Amino acid sequence: MLTVKNKMHTKTPENSKTTTTDLVLPSDTNSINNLFGGELLARMDRVASIAAGKHAEQIVVTASINHVAFSRPVPLGSVLTLEAKVSRAFTTSLEVFIEVWNESRDNKIKTKVNEAIFTFVAVDKNGNPVKVPQLLPETEIEKQRFDAALRRRQLSLVLAGKLQAKDATELKALFD
Amino acid sequence: MLTVKNKMHTKTPENSKTTTTDLVLPSDTNSINNLFGGELLARMDRVASIAAGKHAEQIVVTASINHVAFSRPVPLGSVLTLEAKVSRAFTTSLEVFIEVWNESRDNKIKTKVNEAIFTFVAVDKNGNPVKVPQLLPETEIEKQRFDAALRRRQLSLVLAGKLQAKDATELKALFD
Amino acid sequence: MLTVKNKMHTKTPENSKTTTTDLVLPSDTNSINNLFGGELLARMDRVASIAAGKHAEQIVVTASINHVAFSRPVPLGSVLTLEAKVSRAFTTSLEVFIEVWNESRDNKIKTKVNEAIFTFVAVDKNGNPVKVPQLLPETEIEKQRFDAALRRRQLSLVLAGKLQAKDATELKALFD
Amino acid sequence: MLTVKNKMHTKTPENSKTTTTDLVLPSDTNSINNLFGGELLARMDRVASIAAGKHAEQIVVTASINHVAFSRPVPLGSVLTLEAKVSRAFTTSLEVFIEVWNESRDNKIKTKVNEAIFTFVAVDKNGNPVKVPQLLPETEIEKQRFDAALRRRQLSLVLAGKLQAKDATELKALFD
Amino acid sequence: MLTVKNKMHTKTPENSKTTTTDLVLPSDTNSINNLFGGELLARMDRVASIAAGKHAEQIVVTASINHVAFSRPVPLGSVLTLEAKVSRAFTTSLEVFIEVWNESRDNKIKTKVNEAIFTFVAVDKNGNPVKVPQLLPETEIEKQRFDAALRRRQLSLVLAGKLQAKDATELKALFD
Amino acid sequence: MLTVKNKMHTKTPENSKTTTTDLVLPSDTNSINNLFGGELLARMDRVASIAAGKHAEQIVVTASINHVAFSRPVPLGSVLTLEAKVSRAFTTSLEVFIEVWNESRDNKIKTKVNEAIFTFVAVDKNGNPVKVPQLLPETEIEKQRFDAALRRRQLSLVLAGKLQAKDATELKALFD
Repeated sequence: MLTVKNKMHTKTPENSKTTTTDLVLPSDTNSINNLFGGELLARMDRVASIAAGKHAEQIVVTASINHVAFSRPVPLGSVLTLEAKVSRAFTTSLEVFIEVWNESRDNKIKTKVNEAIFTFVAVDKNGNPVKVPQLLPETEIEKQRFDAALRRRQLSLVLAGKLQAKDATELKALFD
Repeated sequence: MLTVKNKMHTKTPENSKTTTTDLVLPSDTNSINNLFGGELLARMDRVASIAAGKHAEQIVVTASINHVAFSRPVPLGSVLTLEAKVSRAFTTSLEVFIEVWNESRDNKIKTKVNEAIFTFVAVDKNGNPVKVPQLLPETEIEKQRFDAALRRRQLSLVLAGKLQAKDATELKALFD
Repeated sequence: MLTVKNKMHTKTPENSKTTTTDLVLPSDTNSINNLFGGELLARMDRVASIAAGKHAEQIVVTASINHVAFSRPVPLGSVLTLEAKVSRAFTTSLEVFIEVWNESRDNKIKTKVNEAIFTFVAVDKNGNPVKVPQLLPETEIEKQRFDAALRRRQLSLVLAGKLQAKDATELKALFD
Repeated sequence: MLTVKNKMHTKTPENSKTTTTDLVLPSDTNSINNLFGGELLARMDRVASIAAGKHAEQIVVTASINHVAFSRPVPLGSVLTLEAKVSRAFTTSLEVFIEVWNESRDNKIKTKVNEAIFTFVAVDKNGNPVKVPQLLPETEIEKQRFDAALRRRQLSLVLAGKLQAKDATELKALFD
Repeated sequence: MLTVKNKMHTKTPENSKTTTTDLVLPSDTNSINNLFGGELLARMDRVASIAAGKHAEQIVVTASINHVAFSRPVPLGSVLTLEAKVSRAFTTSLEVFIEVWNESRDNKIKTKVNEAIFTFVAVDKNGNPVKVPQLLPETEIEKQRFDAALRRRQLSLVLAGKLQAKDATELKALFD
Repeated sequence: MLTVKNKMHTKTPENSKTTTTDLVLPSDTNSINNLFGGELLARMDRVASIAAGKHAEQIVVTASINHVAFSRPVPLGSVLTLEAKVSRAFTTSLEVFIEVWNESRDNKIKTKVNEAIFTFVAVDKNGNPVKVPQLLPETEIEKQRFDAALRRRQLSLVLAGKLQAKDATELKALFD
């Protein structure tokens, strides 16, 4: 019965896919006229929390940011698209993968300028963690991210001193 | 000569220490009246970039966020203090350690609610990376962070496929 | 030749489709905790100008707002999606159709809360109007909007005193 | 008695006149340093809702925007004045006319850059529509706007399919 | 000749009168739902600098704030009106008097909640002070403010150590 | 006993010292790319209210601004530091002294660009004034500010007509 119920709750990354496209206006820029890092982080957090909320069907709060790499500057006037999808669900937490593209007005070419991984926890109204549906990855890239999410989680637990490095099996394999 | 010159440029974490204390106002909160995650990230990015700029004496741009853990919610009306210090300098990049405290109005107790690690790159006006002064950690905690920064950097290179896991000596030691 | 050239430039509504999903945070609300009308108008203008820019491949500036109906209030905490598509291209101007949905966190049902029609003009760097590609509607609803756009344009010209009511053929037909 | 009571409630456009003068600062501009359309719409909505509130003496919510024409760009540093007055009252709704002037710092000449028409509905605390005082236009221009408001309302009802075109008497007269 | 020229340039307080009416929205409030002091100061500075600019017909920059008294709290949802008029012109500087009223939605009574005095300096593009037209007060209250402005200026110079207290004739008279 | 209790409550300026360092971003600037006066006032009000709150251990509301002198413009891209300390406590009110430094990115020299004096009142939840701890100045400059605060308070009372000039003993001494 439990299996059936779990099956019912299982969702795909596509189910939580959230897209947001917006301009880079002067009030979003730093002193050299590129998108201010902090503003990009704020946009990421908003779109990722919406994706996490779609999957969890609960209130979600940002738990940690695993990784953000700012690979290219985003100039004033850019059209910026952020796409967020849940990449793995654990018991009460969710990892969300965010990709950022810049579509220049001139040549209409979309360039990937950034990717980021945020983790959210689903909570009830008293702030206590609650269970979330499982995730079933479908595409090849979704499966790769699903597997990598476990290694990231182990790493995060090792770095926080909550898991012995020797027990982080999947992560340890990287170094053998 | 080079040694002398390097010595001249060497700075301590204290040299780049930057503190900012500000209120959590209604426009900073999410729909459950706690500080919105994206707003906290924006504040972190600003204070960390100031610390990185003090050390580098150059324009700095956010390169990556290694880790942010949101351990506790920060309610509306809080007095929030962020303190940033450079934790390690590499050739052209800098790791900055940020700590966040919440000082409640009621009991006047400072509670640590967050810590984060951001990496910046120093650039010239054309955006090309330029060298930065070395960092000399002084206190015990500064030395621990200095050592951990190398492991974080190796991990980051391994995850980006730019370093073989077997060559990440300091990181690998964790798993032996 | 001209036909060929026009064909090359012809675009579909789908080509300009732009979607943006974002939260309604406290700083976006009015004094009764619903999305402030002015904030919604600002979001519409941004997403519509991106859609117009994708079609025109030029700088576009807002020329007029033909119609916005606020059918339902949007409460704090809502997840709001705006979708904009070019509905008709004239010589140097473009009509953009915007639809707004609210996805409640509780029941996960998308409700249409608003629709709006904005007109943009494509300009060069000196602000002079420049030609835009023609639009080829594909779906039934796109064709209906394409036809209605002409009537709206005639109405707009009549109201501005730039067209005699008797010459507004398509519009006049409504009243016969 | 009812007549007397209505008379008591009748108000003039001057009674609701609301003026707001403010600067165009960098955070209000688009990427070519002119006032961002969305920011102007937000300012219009605020000043018009104040005018509607003065007339209705009730909570008012934005119901629709009938027309906005952006006739001229408004550069950074401008001093912008918006003036709103109720142009007609219906049973529970109000039409507000907004004029926008730009006063350049250099030649001190006021230029009209925009006009707009917004409609508001007066509501009680549960969001149900409530009656509003009637409007008595005084000047010639106020009388013209008062008459045109009825045609705009008929047009709006026709376009929404709530009124047969043949029954929109005042509007139909335009096309005869 | 000079007299004539000066006469030409003389302006009245009414010439620089600037009014701005705006709502108090959630993003303008502090944690107890009243208008945040800093937001009110920002609104004052904008309206006062517009009034100073109208008088000077030059770029003006804020030089000092002589006095602001926050006599009453301004709750969320208020309709706030600020009125600024130049109260005295010196050689290159201007004193501006600002009054703030709150018009409650319920009883439609305007209450004065604040008054403030700001001083601006007129500058050319290199930031050097330039002369401003003289002010001719007309009403009784304008004349009182004109006289008091001289005492305020003397006081300001005394406190800054730029004027001997014994030479501040008008101010000294207060204490005799 | 009372003396002892008062002694317990006595605080030093250092106890309330609050520092905030932040960037001057494009959204903070006026049309000539310097920090907008209103934005600086808002930052001052926030940091001063935090300092007052630390001393009072109560809710504090801004009561008046005694003096702000904008001595130097602060260009875009500056790193601005504000430091606030309580300078004198009266029965239920507090004077706070704020100093503002600009640290240029180029030469790393801190320049004092501003100082300001704000007064706050401590209130309970119903807005009634409540007593605050006394202040014990320690350094020479703190003692000077402590003495000057009394003269400022007398001046403020004289100007408000609440104190006869002849009774403002400390202030009057300035003019003898």
